[in-house]
Amino acid sequence: MQLGIIGLGRMGGNIARRLMRAGHRTVVHDRNREAITGLEGEGAQGAHDLGALVQKLKAPRAVWVMLPAGDATEQTIAQLAELLEPGDAIIDGGNTFYKDDMRRAAELAKRGLHYLDVGTSGGVWGLDRGYCMMIGGEKDVFERLEPLFKALAPGVGDIPRTHGRSGEHQRAEHGYIHAGPPGAGHYVKMVHNGIEYGLMQAYAEGFDLLRSKGGNELPEDQRFDLNVAEIAEVWRRGSVVTSWLLDLTADALVADPQLSQFSGSVSDSGEGRWTIDAAVEQAVPVPVLSSALFARFRSRQQQGTYGDKILSAMRLGFGGHVEKKGE
Amino acid sequence: MQLGIIGLGRMGGNIARRLMRAGHRTVVHDRNREAITGLEGEGAQGAHDLGALVQKLKAPRAVWVMLPAGDATEQTIAQLAELLEPGDAIIDGGNTFYKDDMRRAAELAKRGLHYLDVGTSGGVWGLDRGYCMMIGGEKDVFERLEPLFKALAPGVGDIPRTHGRSGEHQRAEHGYIHAGPPGAGHYVKMVHNGIEYGLMQAYAEGFDLLRSKGGNELPEDQRFDLNVAEIAEVWRRGSVVTSWLLDLTADALVADPQLSQFSGSVSDSGEGRWTIDAAVEQAVPVPVLSSALFARFRSRQQQGTYGDKILSAMRLGFGGHVEKKGE
Amino acid sequence: MQLGIIGLGRMGGNIARRLMRAGHRTVVHDRNREAITGLEGEGAQGAHDLGALVQKLKAPRAVWVMLPAGDATEQTIAQLAELLEPGDAIIDGGNTFYKDDMRRAAELAKRGLHYLDVGTSGGVWGLDRGYCMMIGGEKDVFERLEPLFKALAPGVGDIPRTHGRSGEHQRAEHGYIHAGPPGAGHYVKMVHNGIEYGLMQAYAEGFDLLRSKGGNELPEDQRFDLNVAEIAEVWRRGSVVTSWLLDLTADALVADPQLSQFSGSVSDSGEGRWTIDAAVEQAVPVPVLSSALFARFRSRQQQGTYGDKILSAMRLGFGGHVEKKGE
Amino acid sequence: MQLGIIGLGRMGGNIARRLMRAGHRTVVHDRNREAITGLEGEGAQGAHDLGALVQKLKAPRAVWVMLPAGDATEQTIAQLAELLEPGDAIIDGGNTFYKDDMRRAAELAKRGLHYLDVGTSGGVWGLDRGYCMMIGGEKDVFERLEPLFKALAPGVGDIPRTHGRSGEHQRAEHGYIHAGPPGAGHYVKMVHNGIEYGLMQAYAEGFDLLRSKGGNELPEDQRFDLNVAEIAEVWRRGSVVTSWLLDLTADALVADPQLSQFSGSVSDSGEGRWTIDAAVEQAVPVPVLSSALFARFRSRQQQGTYGDKILSAMRLGFGGHVEKKGE
Repeated sequence: MQLGIIGLGRMGGNIARRLMRAGHRTVVHDRNREAITGLEGEGAQGAHDLGALVQKLKAPRAVWVMLPAGDATEQTIAQLAELLEPGDAIIDGGNTFYKDDMRRAAELAKRGLHYLDVGTSGGVWGLDRGYCMMIGGEKDVFERLEPLFKALAPGVGDIPRTHGRSGEHQRAEHGYIHAGPPGAGHYVKMVHNGIEYGLMQAYAEGFDLLRSKGGNELPEDQRFDLNVAEIAEVWRRGSVVTSWLLDLTADALVADPQLSQFSGSVSDSGEGRWTIDAAVEQAVPVPVLSSALFARFRSRQQQGTYGDKILSAMRLGFGGHVEKKGE
Repeated sequence: MQLGIIGLGRMGGNIARRLMRAGHRTVVHDRNREAITGLEGEGAQGAHDLGALVQKLKAPRAVWVMLPAGDATEQTIAQLAELLEPGDAIIDGGNTFYKDDMRRAAELAKRGLHYLDVGTSGGVWGLDRGYCMMIGGEKDVFERLEPLFKALAPGVGDIPRTHGRSGEHQRAEHGYIHAGPPGAGHYVKMVHNGIEYGLMQAYAEGFDLLRSKGGNELPEDQRFDLNVAEIAEVWRRGSVVTSWLLDLTADALVADPQLSQFSGSVSDSGEGRWTIDAAVEQAVPVPVLSSALFARFRSRQQQGTYGDKILSAMRLGFGGHVEKKGE
Repeated sequence: MQLGIIGLGRMGGNIARRLMRAGHRTVVHDRNREAITGLEGEGAQGAHDLGALVQKLKAPRAVWVMLPAGDATEQTIAQLAELLEPGDAIIDGGNTFYKDDMRRAAELAKRGLHYLDVGTSGGVWGLDRGYCMMIGGEKDVFERLEPLFKALAPGVGDIPRTHGRSGEHQRAEHGYIHAGPPGAGHYVKMVHNGIEYGLMQAYAEGFDLLRSKGGNELPEDQRFDLNVAEIAEVWRRGSVVTSWLLDLTADALVADPQLSQFSGSVSDSGEGRWTIDAAVEQAVPVPVLSSALFARFRSRQQQGTYGDKILSAMRLGFGGHVEKKGE
Repeated sequence: MQLGIIGLGRMGGNIARRLMRAGHRTVVHDRNREAITGLEGEGAQGAHDLGALVQKLKAPRAVWVMLPAGDATEQTIAQLAELLEPGDAIIDGGNTFYKDDMRRAAELAKRGLHYLDVGTSGGVWGLDRGYCMMIGGEKDVFERLEPLFKALAPGVGDIPRTHGRSGEHQRAEHGYIHAGPPGAGHYVKMVHNGIEYGLMQAYAEGFDLLRSKGGNELPEDQRFDLNVAEIAEVWRRGSVVTSWLLDLTADALVADPQLSQFSGSVSDSGEGRWTIDAAVEQAVPVPVLSSALFARFRSRQQQGTYGDKILSAMRLGFGGHVEKKGE
């Protein structure tokens, strides 16, 4: 099949590559001409503006937008909407807020354009490992473009089959699903990322407990000097906490058990925040997912917070407690 | 009545003073001779060692130990136990762990000695405001010493009476209760402090939200530059969040709305920790009380934590996210 | 002064009454004619529709809308905007989302109309106790209407003055403030309610710990049978956790220590949710405020949640743990 | 090698079987004679009491105790201590609290006996998958018995090797480690289980969000009816949240997406609780691990809690809010 791709960063470029490896044709565009030239060298057809990209595709067209969520994606889709013809489809593969998908799909539908939102997990490993995709939008449009998704997905691989599944492998077992109507793809991806935050924080707290067991909060005869790299490694073998995130942790700890290259200031992205907003909207208690997000917020405030100073001020007020200097 | 008092720090000294103001007699001891001399000047009878203190009291004696919880209190009670006679009573007014009270009361009972554990709230304000006391131990011993507790308590004062209460004011309305058997006094005080942590953290988070509303996480047209001192003050008048802790916050914010004298490193004491241990033991979910304790732990780690570095290492592993420098 | 009031429920009716007690004149409207008639009997001038209400007021008019936040308020303000003249002011005293205030104020400004948002705390007690008010909007409009706010506020009363304040009492000490531009009033009220949730949950967890200490999670020799009503009462006297919410708890526990009239299903309102959304937007960690909201969400799911069933399914999967029946 | 095994439940029996498969000899005991007979049929040597078991082993002996943590293990070890000779070793493979290990190892050392604490993960899958083991105790004793641990461990298998590891596979890569001195094995296992709780709760909250997106907290046009079984399956392929716990969830959801066999009442065991106590002792904030434990506590209180009733009582007090019936 043929696919237009806009945005040739790490994700967009690798999506083009993985599709071409599977024999699909791509017409690619990026603001950066070198990115276009590079992919041309790998077999893609370059387009130096959106108009050219649209002209080089045959109707019904499909154009994958792989840009930062927000203004960049919004404006590009608005421009595409002016250039495309009824029956064409826009695919948003970025980390868009699912309510924006719902709005956009409704707007594009008025022009006869289709819209798929693709939540994509796999990050820098996707080129080789394949992309796990959760896709929202009209089912028949999804089915028309399914060969592309199948090529991008990890495929069945050698993962042990889920108990109770038999017969021909289904889409989910290849690594992609049609999640539901517009927005459903990014909604599922958003929850995925919310879970990811929670899993990461669970490990982080556990490793903090391993390390602090050797530290000076405890009397000397209560301390254990534990080897965190060995522990991460052993947990990869037959334990209940085995996971890909643990594999990555083990990688990092072999290289540097002190993790001294890191300051401990941790960024967060839209999905973790939207997950909490969704939980509030749906009245679902999410103490773990919110705690994970708040830990990141807190990690970035390496000075004392105003709230903490309020605590100290109250303690001075009722108990005459003067803040300890050494702390 | 007559009371022996050991430990003439801020709490112990003021307890002696408040009792003497009410006409009771005190025999006082402290490791620091000047503390003894000072109180002698205010009418107390000094004793330069425990033996002297015991001799100067008439049986059945009552000795109030007002020392830091832990070794100091433990050793002093052990020494007193050797010196006192059956029928005498030891009062622990410190912040002892309630299971230590239970053990001690059982040990002392074998010698015919009585033991009361007194959880005391009121801090530096107690001399004038009175002490709120939660008392554990044998009820008849408590009743024998009740005049002392009544003198120390705040009394009925001008607080509006609880709806549904009528007739003669009860002990609780004077500001002291017999909470139950040995340990019950300190257990109730422990929970009091657990609640205190939660209340304080609720205000701290709220004031953080007020202040951050003017900060640079938000686009300029979304910011409000709020006057936190005025807000604390107005909430003291008829709002639902009126409290003594809010009064203290208002005091502090008038003096310095930036709270610039504080670093934001907040200590915690045994009670907040024991409260969480009790919740774990009793299978009671306490997300607010634990969050409040953890916020204090976190406030003292002003460097990036090891756990946070684990998060950054994972993010680098799966997404190639390089930690932002400016954060 | 003269004020139009729309919405004569418990809050709106009492606001009219408190203003009239202070000598102000009110023109009142409600969908329910009996509510109008009732207040006419107390001295108000009734208006059977919005047009009549506007006609009975002299320019520059002020109309206080005291309706449920959301559609009712939105539509009423839209209708008023058609009827009022440049220079008139609309006051929204309900629990409106502060971003709605910002939008509305900008829209009304185009017509030359003014808008004040008034966050009001005090609930059912406001008529006698006065209303604590946090007010957003143009400062000169606020000042023009200040006599009304001063009449509604609790006033200086007999609350001990904040340390460091002296001279003439300021607005905050009367119980109302100009918090900032449009939306600032409801923003501050929103944070107030967020804090309120946190305070309430801190007490709730503490009382759970008091009560569970007598329960069968513990061996018999570890139990204390504590009198929660007495404990609430004694904490009102000189303890650190003294507050109006504690007073209310003490009231309730005198009447029924088992609280058997309650099912334990706890509602929440918009403000608690918006507070969490604001924290997410402003990157402020609010573990206590969010835990308090989530506890309410959880309280309403008295059946096992789907999430809990996921846990049980995993436990069966990895450990062969069959869910205990009796639990 | 030769090993005595006491306790032939699911874990103990399978440990014997896995050792015998590897050519080791076992002498086995259980209170239940049929359990002994069963394993005799599979090649073990039975012993009908502890004395017989000790006699059938050659010095220096090693006896693996695989009983429920607490009294059963404590008493059996005390009896063994009377029967064994200096140089012999006791292995505790149960879920013992690590401070009990520390105490026991010190006591046994006085008799010249050795003690290893083995934290074992792998549950019902261990016979085939192997056991992941974290081992505390004297290093030379560990090394003497290492062939047994190597036989029980999963082995290198076909798991991709951790980046940065090369050369001969180390112990951790076989699935067992010497974690440190007595207690270190169970400490590491305890933290493992703490993390496990956190991971499970992260998934639970995420699946709750997936499911509630189709529920009636939302207006109909905001709902997605998501297929949770397909989502669990697709996340197994190349996503960031891939894990063994997710595999188990996918298994369960294929069989019954409603999970209708479960009530949602979730048990917890000692390790999750001790993890929180350790965090409190070591002053490490663990909001995720504690939230996960508290969610289980809450899941077992399917009636309204006393704390929730306190909230309702306060709401009635300040706002006249009558609890909604339908909730």
